[in-house]
Amino acid sequence: MFMHSKRLQYTVRVGETNPALASLLLEQFGGADGELAAAMRYFTQGLAEDDPGRKDMLLDIATEELSHLEVIGSIVAMLNKGIKAQLSEAALAEADLYRSLNAGGDSHTQSLLFAGGPSLTNSSGVPWTAAYVDSRGEPTCDLRSNIAAESRAKMIYERLINITDDPGIKEALGFLMTREIAHQKSFEKALYAITDNFPPGKLMGIAPFADMYVNTSQGEGDAAGPWNTGAQWERIDDLEEVMPADDGDGAATVKLSRSETAMAGKATERLQSDPAADPQTGADLGAGRITGGEDKGTAPDVSNADKTKVGA
Amino acid sequence: MFMHSKRLQYTVRVGETNPALASLLLEQFGGADGELAAAMRYFTQGLAEDDPGRKDMLLDIATEELSHLEVIGSIVAMLNKGIKAQLSEAALAEADLYRSLNAGGDSHTQSLLFAGGPSLTNSSGVPWTAAYVDSRGEPTCDLRSNIAAESRAKMIYERLINITDDPGIKEALGFLMTREIAHQKSFEKALYAITDNFPPGKLMGIAPFADMYVNTSQGEGDAAGPWNTGAQWERIDDLEEVMPADDGDGAATVKLSRSETAMAGKATERLQSDPAADPQTGADLGAGRITGGEDKGTAPDVSNADKTKVGA
Amino acid sequence: MFMHSKRLQYTVRVGETNPALASLLLEQFGGADGELAAAMRYFTQGLAEDDPGRKDMLLDIATEELSHLEVIGSIVAMLNKGIKAQLSEAALAEADLYRSLNAGGDSHTQSLLFAGGPSLTNSSGVPWTAAYVDSRGEPTCDLRSNIAAESRAKMIYERLINITDDPGIKEALGFLMTREIAHQKSFEKALYAITDNFPPGKLMGIAPFADMYVNTSQGEGDAAGPWNTGAQWERIDDLEEVMPADDGDGAATVKLSRSETAMAGKATERLQSDPAADPQTGADLGAGRITGGEDKGTAPDVSNADKTKVGA
Amino acid sequence: MFMHSKRLQYTVRVGETNPALASLLLEQFGGADGELAAAMRYFTQGLAEDDPGRKDMLLDIATEELSHLEVIGSIVAMLNKGIKAQLSEAALAEADLYRSLNAGGDSHTQSLLFAGGPSLTNSSGVPWTAAYVDSRGEPTCDLRSNIAAESRAKMIYERLINITDDPGIKEALGFLMTREIAHQKSFEKALYAITDNFPPGKLMGIAPFADMYVNTSQGEGDAAGPWNTGAQWERIDDLEEVMPADDGDGAATVKLSRSETAMAGKATERLQSDPAADPQTGADLGAGRITGGEDKGTAPDVSNADKTKVGA
Amino acid sequence: MFMHSKRLQYTVRVGETNPALASLLLEQFGGADGELAAAMRYFTQGLAEDDPGRKDMLLDIATEELSHLEVIGSIVAMLNKGIKAQLSEAALAEADLYRSLNAGGDSHTQSLLFAGGPSLTNSSGVPWTAAYVDSRGEPTCDLRSNIAAESRAKMIYERLINITDDPGIKEALGFLMTREIAHQKSFEKALYAITDNFPPGKLMGIAPFADMYVNTSQGEGDAAGPWNTGAQWERIDDLEEVMPADDGDGAATVKLSRSETAMAGKATERLQSDPAADPQTGADLGAGRITGGEDKGTAPDVSNADKTKVGA
Amino acid sequence: MFMHSKRLQYTVRVGETNPALASLLLEQFGGADGELAAAMRYFTQGLAEDDPGRKDMLLDIATEELSHLEVIGSIVAMLNKGIKAQLSEAALAEADLYRSLNAGGDSHTQSLLFAGGPSLTNSSGVPWTAAYVDSRGEPTCDLRSNIAAESRAKMIYERLINITDDPGIKEALGFLMTREIAHQKSFEKALYAITDNFPPGKLMGIAPFADMYVNTSQGEGDAAGPWNTGAQWERIDDLEEVMPADDGDGAATVKLSRSETAMAGKATERLQSDPAADPQTGADLGAGRITGGEDKGTAPDVSNADKTKVGA
Repeated sequence: MFMHSKRLQYTVRVGETNPALASLLLEQFGGADGELAAAMRYFTQGLAEDDPGRKDMLLDIATEELSHLEVIGSIVAMLNKGIKAQLSEAALAEADLYRSLNAGGDSHTQSLLFAGGPSLTNSSGVPWTAAYVDSRGEPTCDLRSNIAAESRAKMIYERLINITDDPGIKEALGFLMTREIAHQKSFEKALYAITDNFPPGKLMGIAPFADMYVNTSQGEGDAAGPWNTGAQWERIDDLEEVMPADDGDGAATVKLSRSETAMAGKATERLQSDPAADPQTGADLGAGRITGGEDKGTAPDVSNADKTKVGA
Repeated sequence: MFMHSKRLQYTVRVGETNPALASLLLEQFGGADGELAAAMRYFTQGLAEDDPGRKDMLLDIATEELSHLEVIGSIVAMLNKGIKAQLSEAALAEADLYRSLNAGGDSHTQSLLFAGGPSLTNSSGVPWTAAYVDSRGEPTCDLRSNIAAESRAKMIYERLINITDDPGIKEALGFLMTREIAHQKSFEKALYAITDNFPPGKLMGIAPFADMYVNTSQGEGDAAGPWNTGAQWERIDDLEEVMPADDGDGAATVKLSRSETAMAGKATERLQSDPAADPQTGADLGAGRITGGEDKGTAPDVSNADKTKVGA
Repeated sequence: MFMHSKRLQYTVRVGETNPALASLLLEQFGGADGELAAAMRYFTQGLAEDDPGRKDMLLDIATEELSHLEVIGSIVAMLNKGIKAQLSEAALAEADLYRSLNAGGDSHTQSLLFAGGPSLTNSSGVPWTAAYVDSRGEPTCDLRSNIAAESRAKMIYERLINITDDPGIKEALGFLMTREIAHQKSFEKALYAITDNFPPGKLMGIAPFADMYVNTSQGEGDAAGPWNTGAQWERIDDLEEVMPADDGDGAATVKLSRSETAMAGKATERLQSDPAADPQTGADLGAGRITGGEDKGTAPDVSNADKTKVGA
Repeated sequence: MFMHSKRLQYTVRVGETNPALASLLLEQFGGADGELAAAMRYFTQGLAEDDPGRKDMLLDIATEELSHLEVIGSIVAMLNKGIKAQLSEAALAEADLYRSLNAGGDSHTQSLLFAGGPSLTNSSGVPWTAAYVDSRGEPTCDLRSNIAAESRAKMIYERLINITDDPGIKEALGFLMTREIAHQKSFEKALYAITDNFPPGKLMGIAPFADMYVNTSQGEGDAAGPWNTGAQWERIDDLEEVMPADDGDGAATVKLSRSETAMAGKATERLQSDPAADPQTGADLGAGRITGGEDKGTAPDVSNADKTKVGA
Repeated sequence: MFMHSKRLQYTVRVGETNPALASLLLEQFGGADGELAAAMRYFTQGLAEDDPGRKDMLLDIATEELSHLEVIGSIVAMLNKGIKAQLSEAALAEADLYRSLNAGGDSHTQSLLFAGGPSLTNSSGVPWTAAYVDSRGEPTCDLRSNIAAESRAKMIYERLINITDDPGIKEALGFLMTREIAHQKSFEKALYAITDNFPPGKLMGIAPFADMYVNTSQGEGDAAGPWNTGAQWERIDDLEEVMPADDGDGAATVKLSRSETAMAGKATERLQSDPAADPQTGADLGAGRITGGEDKGTAPDVSNADKTKVGA
Repeated sequence: MFMHSKRLQYTVRVGETNPALASLLLEQFGGADGELAAAMRYFTQGLAEDDPGRKDMLLDIATEELSHLEVIGSIVAMLNKGIKAQLSEAALAEADLYRSLNAGGDSHTQSLLFAGGPSLTNSSGVPWTAAYVDSRGEPTCDLRSNIAAESRAKMIYERLINITDDPGIKEALGFLMTREIAHQKSFEKALYAITDNFPPGKLMGIAPFADMYVNTSQGEGDAAGPWNTGAQWERIDDLEEVMPADDGDGAATVKLSRSETAMAGKATERLQSDPAADPQTGADLGAGRITGGEDKGTAPDVSNADKTKVGA
């Protein structure tokens, strides 16, 4: 069961109102790497976790992320306190209010639709979606997702810190960013406290394919690194070798029943195209080629560049 | 520039048609951890990457994931080949086709809307969204996201292998699953080839907050582990200590201009509630309490359980 | 700041595992009227609310809804505990696991993607979206939205109670449903504690249009009721009277600058159609009407019904 | 069956083109509280409604909302008439067109993608989604949702009126806003014409829980009001009393079959963590702590603030 | 299987960085008519296509569209190269970075969330969704969708060309636009190479309804054209004639079983409204009409316009 | 302005209730090619159209599509009339209701969330989104989109007809399907009534690229057809020729300012990887390779297939 204290986890002191900055900060309120995503990622994992230690940790951190959601949301509410009152009381002339709304970012929608309240959207106004939550119910996989998520959230806070010069906000963002570092460390410990955590899950994979590196992108820029070179890797540069990787013919087949075969044949026949024909088309009609009208011609240059290689 | 060979990266041999299984396999075609998500995650990173080695690796793996998308899509197309022809040619009586469509999973939509073609939806029919792509433009963060993504994809393949008894499909899924393991290994190497990769990004965080573990979830089940205990952690059990974590009062404040203050006051006044009143409400009207009608009463039991603790 | 106790707000006693029922219960976990939507609706309002009484109430109820999210999520986790272990350990033969997954609802995706963990989707697998949250930052409006939201949530719980025969689940759902009733009563009190709450907001509207009822749907079935009849209503049955409702001509116009007018003219000219022509079309080509081929004819009956009225 | 008259329900007279204002007005065309949402909410209810009076009302109002959709869409089309022609005819130099597109709001997408036609997006460019439609098929619930929806729509119109100084647009918006007031009054009458409308639906709830107010958010700011205080409320300040609210132990349990128990045990064993270990982690590797390299250190200040309370 | 060459299909030479222009160009990277949508439309069709000629064509064009995705994404990456480095290294003072981020379009989110990497969103930041892909598994239908899609993509490129004055970008966009024209021509040829392609699919339709034009929108502005006038059309101006179009009564009915009828009756009775009542409502309470308080009055003018027609 | 007649455009006579069939029919109510998508596509085009003839046609057809939405929605409402009453009145035992809900398709969500009312979702429960509406504000493009959309809608109706044996529903679906054919014919006439309609828009494209066919997918299965062969096509089989298609080097470049160059260098340096290193990784830790523990080994076979080609 959750409880709430009226005190924030970090004091919020905003120097002056600024709806456009508020709109950017929403990235960490209702954005992909924001605090709701974090809280829900760990909360859903925690409910289904059977290991008592990890369950405890997941609920600890989920709960703290809700407190972070409250901190960032409170900053947004403070930054919008001016525009909210001005808009609700029609305190400025229309043209002035209109200009205030268009101050930057997507602050216009924040003002119009949410009256400056913190909304669960990202900085472009896209509503939060649970598609951001990548809990999969297997700790050797989920803990890696959590590590990655903390590291993404850390980056967004770093960027927000870089663009904010209000010292009170900067300080609170610094706190929130640092907590993501701490959480990442906890998740790392929890992952490696599972002795056998790689590969994740239970199946080991098919041996030769696990050490093969397929150099599918070729040309100037091909490079070697520990990710494709060294004793552990079989690097494939000749792609013919893996088209296919097994000893088959690289085709897709299915065994159809007799009636399925018959039906498939009917469909094929109905829809067959005549590769030898040169049929007149709607585009021919549209370009005046069928009715005998003058051909519209094709393709005057859209630029002055010299295009000599093709068709020269 | 991309090129395509007509041969698949792994030969697809499907034993018999089965649209319901096809519908489940879509999880790896158009689902959150499917091959399109993988390909697009690495492709978008690769385009923006400046480091030549990582750029090469990202484009190699992105391209291979497109080939995997082709393999899994080809399996789906084979499994649906029967229902596709039957539905397009109306080969069965209506009631029989209707039953075929409802064979399981979300195969009904796959048949109706996509005629059995592989569709970019997950196994519940939810369209693929770029919200699944968590590239953030910082390698120390993106490589962790890639490691996590590979580990999620590996798990979904493992589950699909566990429910499939068609040997041809099982084998192809085993190949695809193993390649995710190989890719994870490459991304791990690339991450650790950046010497200073933790914390991700450039800012280090505020020292004391990086080692603090806040025990926000308390009660029977509290547990100790390397994620919250040991020399590196300052564990906070007394939450009062971090409400707030700074030396402020835990409140949110903003400095308003004089006119903003005036406007905020107007809004407050217009909307003030009278805490001492006990107003009649719409619910009172609806429950017959205002018009003097007989009270509908409240709350007969919905079960036979004995509820004695509260209100006994 | 949030805190968490390991005890649930209501004890969850599930009689036996059942992933298909779990899938239906997700409607109240990650669905439109589920507990996350409720918690987030009140939490975002609470952060931006200036009235101390309402702010306190909103945070009280938001916090309780998070506890409800925990209860419903715990039921889901219990119902899925069997399939989760079977799938992760491959404990059943493939065909048996496959059948278990297709037990009903969208339990297949829940198992495959989330391994039975409670996921933030509705009962059809659609991810939760903040589009469900209709907070608008004006209490005379938001409180009405809250009343409506509680009444929707109450209905979904009622339906879930009607289809569940597990007494432990039924009892917990009964608790949750009843709390929605209590919350609705609180929001009603809060709304009517604002003396002037109708119309919501500050502007009153233009007098004659506020009492006009426009009978736009006509024919057998036209009915009178207090919503369109009586002293307070001016009912318009002759639609000509309100086409338009003002004294204009019902057209849409804009004053264009001279250059805008010139440009608009150019576009019109470029795209003008010749209403007198009877051009040949792509469909004509496709139906064999241009090349002189035999007309495919049109429209044999798709049923045996007698269609005499039109075209007889 | 629907019919359409070429005359609008309200004459649209726009003073001059302004794509940025058009972009804001889209909130009521394709936004959450816009006219399409309104029309579809009542139309879907009307189709399923059995009560003849309510069915008639719902279709009347749904039809009128479609006419409002036409009015607001026509305003948008007029405001965009200049940019549309300029862009389609390339009437301005590139740099000038580019500047015109970036005039404010999300007018850039409106121009690029929709060429200034009214699009079913909100003012941030988010496509309309049926997730906005909260019809639930129970009139005592749906009518409350309708009341709330009208009140939200009224607010957005009020805000748009406050930022618009074009008299023709302001007047039309005033008409539309007032009609929302009228519709709210109709829905109120329809709700209270159902004698027993509270609680919505059929089940009454479990008595003691319907009058309980749980004070989950505590601290300075706790307040009393008619929503939590008075004869009808049992207010719980000691949260221990409701953890849990029943007489159980507040835990979640499920009865597993013998084989389910065995499987769950296997999974637990495979994934157990060693709480006593202090494993080395990827983050340790990344921070140089394993290889013996110099520790990157932690956490230089990101601000100049004095952080003395924690860790002092 | 896919392969990749490090050389682009068209050389990208960007004159100077410009994140706001990058943000607009995303329309063709991750927008509705962008290159990913094109590639996936043809790729999914190609996998399921049985006709060898069309299958080959679809995979040819799908692969080329992936190469176009790479070209447009590379332009975006170049345009963002400045802001990316500045933000990641905090190279500018906060206020300057803040201003850079708000340069126009939705470049703020592109910078914050994606660090200037090409993201799969449209120019308003809306994530790409597979809802854009309209493949339906029937070539006489899909080829028409492909023709339309190419024509939409051509238009967006044309608009982007019109607003860009960087010659290198303009030239590359001209190449991409022209390729859409070529693809449209291929799809046209493929459509008309199927002799009987209209109506699409197999069923012909019911004769009289296929030639009927229903003039549902009437009034000043009614017009004649080849789409509703001429020998092939039966034009219906008297709508009574098609209400309904069959010889029934235009009502919707279903045969209910005896128990269904009984149940429906119960629901009706429970929810019946009393059309003769004039119940007091929540709005009455809110406007002070029940408690005897002074009526708030209604509807002062929001504008100075003279509203005489209605209610005069 | 819209008006509504209580009579449907086609009489709906449903033989018996069937919620699972209702769920499938939703594809044409709230699905991608359903009637709302059709109505909104033409309505938004009509509002912005300046050509009087096309404007009239678009509003005629948009209005008729709304009437079709009503017909298909009425069928759904009839099919669900039984389950709606049973669920709302709890008329069946829990287990029986539970079974009724799981009858097929996604009828479970339709019942639970919408109580059988027609909902704006597709047959998988995915909410309708305006992303389906592809109006682009240029008639030579939009009319092609309309032609394609009609042809998709025709196909879905054809498939629904093929699976329905209720004669009343089949007949109504036949009517609706045929009207799509008629609408397609109108849009074809309107397209070809614009003399110069190809290429769409105003720019013609760059000549050589408009006739080039790039054979990007090669191997067994390469085919010739009128789409890539013949006088009008320059077919490129040697891909080197178009890598790149211009005379550049196929690389992406941008001119950076001096300070941008400096910053980019800093970022590169901070994030450089050491390609010569073979760093230990988190996966190595997880597989027990660092601590000297026994290697977990790799990759036992997941199948019995003989994998000899790779790694043999």
